[in-house]
Amino acid sequence: MTNAAHTLVLLRHGQSLWNEKNLFTGWVDVDLTEKGREEARRGGELLVAEGFAPDVLHTSRLRRAITTANLALDAADRHWIDVKRSWRLNERHYGALQGKDKAQVKEKYGEEQFMAWRRGYDTPPPPIDADDEYSQADDPRYADLGNEVPATECLKDVVERLRPYWAEEIVPDLQAGRTVLVTAHGNSLRAMVKELDGISDEDIAELNIPTGIPLVYELDESFKPLTPGGRYLDPEAAAGAIQEVANQGSR
Amino acid sequence: MTNAAHTLVLLRHGQSLWNEKNLFTGWVDVDLTEKGREEARRGGELLVAEGFAPDVLHTSRLRRAITTANLALDAADRHWIDVKRSWRLNERHYGALQGKDKAQVKEKYGEEQFMAWRRGYDTPPPPIDADDEYSQADDPRYADLGNEVPATECLKDVVERLRPYWAEEIVPDLQAGRTVLVTAHGNSLRAMVKELDGISDEDIAELNIPTGIPLVYELDESFKPLTPGGRYLDPEAAAGAIQEVANQGSR
Repeated sequence: MTNAAHTLVLLRHGQSLWNEKNLFTGWVDVDLTEKGREEARRGGELLVAEGFAPDVLHTSRLRRAITTANLALDAADRHWIDVKRSWRLNERHYGALQGKDKAQVKEKYGEEQFMAWRRGYDTPPPPIDADDEYSQADDPRYADLGNEVPATECLKDVVERLRPYWAEEIVPDLQAGRTVLVTAHGNSLRAMVKELDGISDEDIAELNIPTGIPLVYELDESFKPLTPGGRYLDPEAAAGAIQEVANQGSR
Repeated sequence: MTNAAHTLVLLRHGQSLWNEKNLFTGWVDVDLTEKGREEARRGGELLVAEGFAPDVLHTSRLRRAITTANLALDAADRHWIDVKRSWRLNERHYGALQGKDKAQVKEKYGEEQFMAWRRGYDTPPPPIDADDEYSQADDPRYADLGNEVPATECLKDVVERLRPYWAEEIVPDLQAGRTVLVTAHGNSLRAMVKELDGISDEDIAELNIPTGIPLVYELDESFKPLTPGGRYLDPEAAAGAIQEVANQGSR
C-alpha cells in the first residue's frame, strides 16, 4: 500500500485512575479506569479498520500500558503476537511529585516551577525518598536494575534511557519486517517522537500525545519518518484530545 | 521454604464459550465466558495466597489461554513479567471434529470411536479440510509453520511437539532460577504432566486437569517432581472439578 520500509505504531495508554484524580503518577502502577479500557479497545478497532496488524508488541512494565495493549490487541485479533516489556518504556519517574495532586503542587511551588517540572526538558523534580510509599526502590519488578532504579527523571533522562532500547530491541524487529506496536506513556512516547522527528529540546515542550489513538509512523530504510509527526488513525479525535491535554497543562 | 531446585506452575484456561456449548474446540480461537474470566482471576489470587510469584509466562497462541494468563497475572500483581508464546503449547488439534457438537459426534460414531478420539493416546480424528471454516491452514499466526500447520493431532503428537519447547524454552528459564507459569490447555498440560510424572500411554487417558486452579510442580535438579502429580493450590476444588470433567467424558 505504501512505500514505507518499516511500520511503527505508537499507542498511549487510556485514562488511568490517577489521570482522573489529577495526581502525578510516574512509575506508580495505577490501573486504567473503565473509560481507559474503552479507549484501549477502540484503539484496537482503529488498527483493524485501517489495516495495521502488529507483529510484535513492546510495552513498559506498568499495568496501564500492559492492560491497554492486552485490550487493544484482543480487539484487533492480534492477542497472540510476541511481547517484550521494558522499564525503558516506562513513564518518566516523577520523583517526589509521585502521588501528589497537580493543582496543589502548582499552588505550593508556583506556576513557573510547576511548568519547569512538567515540561522543562532537563529539570527533574526533587528525588523521592526510598522509603516513600510511592518509591519503586524495592519493587521486585525492577530487581534487574539493582540500585539504578531512578528516584526522579527529566525528559532528557527518558530520551537517554530509551536510546539503547530503540537500537537493540525495536530496530531489529523493524528490520525483520515486523510491524511494531509500542504501548507506553505520555513522556516515553514524547521521547520517542522527539528522536524520530528530530524535535528540539525547546519545541518538545509543546508536543502532546493523546491517549488511546494509534499514531502510525511509516519509516524509510534509515528509520526516518516518511511523514513528519506520523499519522493518527483518528485525526479528528486526536486534534481534540491534544487540545484537551494542553488545557490540562494550564489548569 | 522448600528444597525444590525449580518451580513450575501449570494453569489450564477457564471455561470457554465452546466448553459451555460442549463443542470440540482444538485450535479454534474461542473466547472465555465470564465464568472463565472469574476462574482466571481466582487462579491469580490463589498464586498470591500461596506465595507463588511467577517470573516468566509461557502461553499458547490461543486467546483463552492468553486471556487467562493476563487476568491471573493482573490479579497476582505480576502482569509485568516476561512473556513467551508458542503454538507448541496449543490445545490438541481436533481435526475434522473442530466445531462439532460432542454429543452428536458420539451419537454418529458410537461410544467406542468417540472415546478413542477423545482419550486414545495415538488415535487422531480425521484431518480437517484446509478450506473448512474451522481449519487453521491459512491463519497468519501460524505463518512461521508454513505448511506444517496440523490438520489433526492425537495426544502423542502433542507430547512430541511439546518436547523441544520444554527443552529449549522452559528448562532454560527454570535453570535461571525463574518461577515459570505455563498457561495452556487440557491436552497440552496433560502432555506435559505425562512427561513430568512418567505416566504410561494407557494411564494418561484417566488424567484430567481442572480449569483455573494452579498446579504447582516443585522439581529437583534433574527436573523430576518432588511430589508426583504436583500439588493443586486448591486441592478440594481440584478434586471436585476433576470428577466433573470425568463425568463430562461419559456424557
